[in-house]
Amino acid sequence: MAAGRRVRVVDLEGGQVGDLFAYAADDPRERLSAAHTRSETSRLFPALGEAFVTDRRRPILTLAGDTSPGSHDMLIAACDPARYAALGVPVHRSCARNLDLALAELGLEAGTTPQPVNVFMRIPVEEAGRLRWLPAESRAGDSITFEAAMDCVIALSACPQDQVGINNGRPTPLAIDVL
Amino acid sequence: MAAGRRVRVVDLEGGQVGDLFAYAADDPRERLSAAHTRSETSRLFPALGEAFVTDRRRPILTLAGDTSPGSHDMLIAACDPARYAALGVPVHRSCARNLDLALAELGLEAGTTPQPVNVFMRIPVEEAGRLRWLPAESRAGDSITFEAAMDCVIALSACPQDQVGINNGRPTPLAIDVL
Repeated sequence: MAAGRRVRVVDLEGGQVGDLFAYAADDPRERLSAAHTRSETSRLFPALGEAFVTDRRRPILTLAGDTSPGSHDMLIAACDPARYAALGVPVHRSCARNLDLALAELGLEAGTTPQPVNVFMRIPVEEAGRLRWLPAESRAGDSITFEAAMDCVIALSACPQDQVGINNGRPTPLAIDVL
Repeated sequence: MAAGRRVRVVDLEGGQVGDLFAYAADDPRERLSAAHTRSETSRLFPALGEAFVTDRRRPILTLAGDTSPGSHDMLIAACDPARYAALGVPVHRSCARNLDLALAELGLEAGTTPQPVNVFMRIPVEEAGRLRWLPAESRAGDSITFEAAMDCVIALSACPQDQVGINNGRPTPLAIDVL
């Protein structure tokens, strides 16, 4: 995506989490960093109009629109083979693997999976820092829109998690529209 | 540190934040991951007896003791040159730089700075996911103790932040005691 373009992630059937990653086009070692974004915004998740920044504190995406109820997460790691193995499913597709495959198609090496931007994921912080894992409450057709603040590569995984309830027990597709 | 050994971080004068990092000794590409630790514990910060895990979801440190009031953070990125530049101080020591220098002494390459375990750092999560940056409330002599769950390399930076109030305006030393 060239700087200034927008991408809209649509939850086609509702109740579906997506793991979104963003890398600087000119050097994919620079990537969207949840920790630096929290540090810059002093929020768990940017407000409308605020930027997600890279690990070099440069804006990479801006939160440009959101028609969902507004629950999104940047606390929880991407699901991966170790996660499913611990849940008793040694062979299972995962967001980490989806990212690796998508980047490989572009000739990029994923390296360590970054902390994703978990769109539509509902992880409230409760008393004493306890986290709850709740089913996504996005409705069919709800979307979240990002504007590229620099030339970047975006990857999105419709989370295949069916062992815990975050996708309402039934993973479904997301659409990704470059506007 | 060999598995089973303990390390105690002591706030000698009180009110001082430390950024702690941990790497697997046999492959430093595997490191303590805040995101995976939150995912495994369903907490913003492990409770006493719980483990910090790596990006491969293997326990690396266990929280073995804490004599402080209990405020610690895993949300905020390490301070770095870009952070100080934005605060109007283009030349300033930082936790990210301290980590790089410490790892270089061991012949290790830091690569991307991981999300640190920010001991004694007080970042409460408030209404609507807002984060506040409060002065550390650890008292002189307060300590937090970790037990190695695998052979690992630990790095600690006494945070040199003097431009915002997290260290009560005056960075002071931390001690690191391997027990």
